[in-house]
Amino acid sequence: MPLPAKIDYGSGALSIGASFTVTFSGCADARIAAAAGRLVTRLSRQTGIPMTGTAGSPTLTIECTGRSADYPALGDDESYRLDVTPSGARITAPAVWGALHGIETFTQLVEPAATGFQVPAVHIEDRPRFPWRGLMLDVSRHWMPVPVVLRNLDTMAAVKLNVFHWHLSDDQGFRVESKLYPRLQEFGSDGHFYTQSEIRQVVNYARDRGIRVVPEFDMPGHTLSWFPGYPDLTAGRGPFEIGRHFGVFDPVMDPSRESTYEFLDGFIGEMAGLFPDAYFHVGGDEVNGKQWAQSPGVQAFARQHGFADTKEIQLYFSRRLHEILAKHGKTMIGWDEILQPDLGPGTVIETWRNQASLADSIRAGYRGILSWGYYLDHLSPAKYHYGIDPQGGPAEQLTPEQLSRILGGEACMWSELVDAETVDSRIWPRAAVIAERFWSPASVTDVDSMYQRMQAVSRQLEWTGVQHRADYQPMLDRLSGDRRAPAVRVLADAVEALGLGPRVRARQYTTDVPLNRMVDAARPESESVRALELAAARLDTAALRRAFTVWAANDAVFQPLAENNALLAELRPVSKNLAELGTIGLKALDYLSTRRRAPRGWVKVQLDRLERMSKPEAEVSLAAVRPVKMLLERME
Amino acid sequence: MPLPAKIDYGSGALSIGASFTVTFSGCADARIAAAAGRLVTRLSRQTGIPMTGTAGSPTLTIECTGRSADYPALGDDESYRLDVTPSGARITAPAVWGALHGIETFTQLVEPAATGFQVPAVHIEDRPRFPWRGLMLDVSRHWMPVPVVLRNLDTMAAVKLNVFHWHLSDDQGFRVESKLYPRLQEFGSDGHFYTQSEIRQVVNYARDRGIRVVPEFDMPGHTLSWFPGYPDLTAGRGPFEIGRHFGVFDPVMDPSRESTYEFLDGFIGEMAGLFPDAYFHVGGDEVNGKQWAQSPGVQAFARQHGFADTKEIQLYFSRRLHEILAKHGKTMIGWDEILQPDLGPGTVIETWRNQASLADSIRAGYRGILSWGYYLDHLSPAKYHYGIDPQGGPAEQLTPEQLSRILGGEACMWSELVDAETVDSRIWPRAAVIAERFWSPASVTDVDSMYQRMQAVSRQLEWTGVQHRADYQPMLDRLSGDRRAPAVRVLADAVEALGLGPRVRARQYTTDVPLNRMVDAARPESESVRALELAAARLDTAALRRAFTVWAANDAVFQPLAENNALLAELRPVSKNLAELGTIGLKALDYLSTRRRAPRGWVKVQLDRLERMSKPEAEVSLAAVRPVKMLLERME
Repeated sequence: MPLPAKIDYGSGALSIGASFTVTFSGCADARIAAAAGRLVTRLSRQTGIPMTGTAGSPTLTIECTGRSADYPALGDDESYRLDVTPSGARITAPAVWGALHGIETFTQLVEPAATGFQVPAVHIEDRPRFPWRGLMLDVSRHWMPVPVVLRNLDTMAAVKLNVFHWHLSDDQGFRVESKLYPRLQEFGSDGHFYTQSEIRQVVNYARDRGIRVVPEFDMPGHTLSWFPGYPDLTAGRGPFEIGRHFGVFDPVMDPSRESTYEFLDGFIGEMAGLFPDAYFHVGGDEVNGKQWAQSPGVQAFARQHGFADTKEIQLYFSRRLHEILAKHGKTMIGWDEILQPDLGPGTVIETWRNQASLADSIRAGYRGILSWGYYLDHLSPAKYHYGIDPQGGPAEQLTPEQLSRILGGEACMWSELVDAETVDSRIWPRAAVIAERFWSPASVTDVDSMYQRMQAVSRQLEWTGVQHRADYQPMLDRLSGDRRAPAVRVLADAVEALGLGPRVRARQYTTDVPLNRMVDAARPESESVRALELAAARLDTAALRRAFTVWAANDAVFQPLAENNALLAELRPVSKNLAELGTIGLKALDYLSTRRRAPRGWVKVQLDRLERMSKPEAEVSLAAVRPVKMLLERME
Repeated sequence: MPLPAKIDYGSGALSIGASFTVTFSGCADARIAAAAGRLVTRLSRQTGIPMTGTAGSPTLTIECTGRSADYPALGDDESYRLDVTPSGARITAPAVWGALHGIETFTQLVEPAATGFQVPAVHIEDRPRFPWRGLMLDVSRHWMPVPVVLRNLDTMAAVKLNVFHWHLSDDQGFRVESKLYPRLQEFGSDGHFYTQSEIRQVVNYARDRGIRVVPEFDMPGHTLSWFPGYPDLTAGRGPFEIGRHFGVFDPVMDPSRESTYEFLDGFIGEMAGLFPDAYFHVGGDEVNGKQWAQSPGVQAFARQHGFADTKEIQLYFSRRLHEILAKHGKTMIGWDEILQPDLGPGTVIETWRNQASLADSIRAGYRGILSWGYYLDHLSPAKYHYGIDPQGGPAEQLTPEQLSRILGGEACMWSELVDAETVDSRIWPRAAVIAERFWSPASVTDVDSMYQRMQAVSRQLEWTGVQHRADYQPMLDRLSGDRRAPAVRVLADAVEALGLGPRVRARQYTTDVPLNRMVDAARPESESVRALELAAARLDTAALRRAFTVWAANDAVFQPLAENNALLAELRPVSKNLAELGTIGLKALDYLSTRRRAPRGWVKVQLDRLERMSKPEAEVSLAAVRPVKMLLERME
């Protein structure tokens, strides 16, 4: 995952053992050498076989047929070929970027076999469908230390994502050291910011993995954290404080004063030197216009220029930004609120509000990328994201030339309700599915195959160091106070966490609210419930009966654990429902396996009970309802 | 864990929340400040509550009543008092070392409560029973990178161990950079060694946690890795290679040549500067004497000095080492083979062969520490180690003065069959139980209480960063090839790994054999089987029935997974036995719950079947036999 463009299986397999080695031919590139070293380390972890690399003939040969630039660029040739035979493997690529992708594909093909580990014989020809395949990470709402970023870059590389969109400032925190304007981080970050040396480390780390780093400094809105240090940037009245709540705040930058643009010219100039990528994201979303409407200065400025509304004022601001960026050699990218005529040549629009907006951007002559439909913080099931195509929906009406200006998309991880501990499990494995949407041919749409491969890749990704699976049990142990409490795990496996929308409606969240509850530990999609849905589909009564028996008995063990325990107490009704579900499921299995008919109306009554149980409690939904519902519907 | 010397619970509890803060009084010690910072970070992870530390009144006050040296020393006052009331907590200690212990105790007391997290009101007066409470880690047989060492130092500190005995050289690898004799690491380490800067990092890291670092360079035997670089150190004929197998090799140092002592004088002088501790371990174990007997030079030397045997030759060598160590300001410590009269003043003997040898060392006038009975690599159950007292057995005959020369003991982690991935789970949580034996009063011996607290501390230790629990599921995923395979987990939970002895008899192990099998993933003691033993003791039929049902059904799911899978295939008979056990257990429950008598002879037949199942297969034993056996014995 992502599935290659072309794959033909051969016969036999290449053994992967202690003597596994890699050599290069035509690649005088330190990145390939480093990637080969990482490959050996990864395979060694993945198989548990110490690989000393001291053997005679190489197992994998990497051949680059051309030279590559130092830093990746939009539109680079990322293609590669991978040939595996029982006697060896070869990756051929025109540039280092494709060779890196080929290495990741090779890693994913390693499987246990009758005599150890192997890679099946295969011929692969692969290239990406879209050149812009991104992951956006918000490090403002909750701080993400450098190791979190680095491990996610490794995982991005593993699934061939090639743009790390780094949302570096927002109302809740300004996260980059500016030497020119040090009060930005001093007063805007609570001490949580990346030094310039750390930024360089991340950029180099990404580059070595074929990943571009596109920084985002969101403006003129979502800028509360700029103002404690530089209150003159806004037309509003201070004193200003970093935002602790979430949502859209009134204070925004003052577009009417030249001093604002002088500041931004200096700031963007400094950042342009720090981030080598050609693209620079200036945000531009969610300006509510209230402050501009109330500011006599801004109103006078608007009258003077003949601006009719907030949109026109923002267009002026965007154009000025475009000029400043051009001066510093950068191409502008912004959220779809900036969409207006004459934004300036080259501008890229990132669409988050709806898919029609992407088509509008393209028709307006811009290039575009799609983020709508790929919001990981909504905790939607993988199949939802998988079903959304950057060139689908309203884009289907576009001409081929217009379609070619849809560059790809980005999975977005906003961090209102995730922190450094939980962020990995909210990104992975679902972002791998989005990566497949961006990389693989549009015809690759089989959901069952996707889920099967997603679960496999989820386990493989653990060897990259990402913590999306590792943090689950410790978070559950925390809930039960260090006791051995399998009942908490049974319940956790049976529920799914709600996403941003219902959670912020359920309670008042701020940046300081602990994210230590069941909803934070529970997965966006339950693997075990999915297994039971498959079991229900093929009526595997043994597997279903085992699960239902455990559920039915779980509540009696769970309830005592919840006594005097604030974190478990809110789950009491959920646990009770799970036990009921187990009982209903067992009863349904009895009817189905004995082929007796249930009493008239019984199924309807049960379905009504399930309907009631489907209502979320404690910000989790009882996913376990689904397989039981499938059984009941079979009986109807 | 370890249980404090004196603990009195009060009423009420101190809430632990986002406003948790620490202050010091009388402690102008950077170590306390750093430890307080770590405490806040740890509590924040353990509770999931972001702690900004910006509150008004402090939650925990630490008061040091005296000054401490820069580096810990044997016999330092490690006592502390901890008072917790609903309004605050206070640690009082005469030295930084006790304050550090008090902080760890405080951490362990944090528990979930009806309104969040809390520490119960308590008055604790605590001090260690023994001053030498060690963990020995062998980094020669398998290489342990710096992060492995660091995370284990954190965990040692958490259970109040205060000596890190670092076994830095053995036949299979020389692991320290010598600038004076660089061929030691160049030809003796396969590139896996600690630079001097890394050694300093580890020593400082340990010191900041109140842990002394005692280096061991094992000689004159277990020195194969010295000879590829410096063949003149041995009387044998080269060329020499690093050892790949395990056991006792013939080549040892040549005690007859002055050049050997000149070399060691230089080397020990260099290492004495690197390791500030007053003690220096010279090994001295397992010299088989073969090479000395065959060497004309050594034999001439022995005749000249009138040495009758290997022991007398080694005594000469040990005395010379004692002189060299004394010159460099170090006190000698060695394994019990060096025990001879007149070894030199101050010598400490570390006993590994049997407990009588410790008493012998003491009677001979030396000080001693006990390692026999604390060999973690044997994978004995925690209760075995718990039952061994450094002052017990033959030592009970000693006088009070003699007993005072028993300084404590060390848990030993030899690394023939563990690597960086598996070592944590072989050390923890069992080493915590040994730590309790060394710290807590001799009267603390309740095994049930120990297991209950060990399991709690095992979960808490995860927050220190040690991987003893985290690596379990990924290792199982590796076995099943990234598929979701709960049946493999069910089997793994039901077995226990065999220790060094039976494993090296089962197959020919070398340093290159992969440690990636079920036996490497399986725990030394199964938590879930222990839970079932407790359930069997109180006849909790519901819990037993659930487990037995899962076991009985597991084999049908497991066997297909084992097809074409070398790592799972060896477990097929174990899985079959587990299913049989489940069936027998269910049958036994039926008899017990219906109070019907089983047919004559039925119990005997089942017990015989269990006896056969108790025979290890694939280097694991089927721990699940135990609770079923308990039920059957109840029926007899």
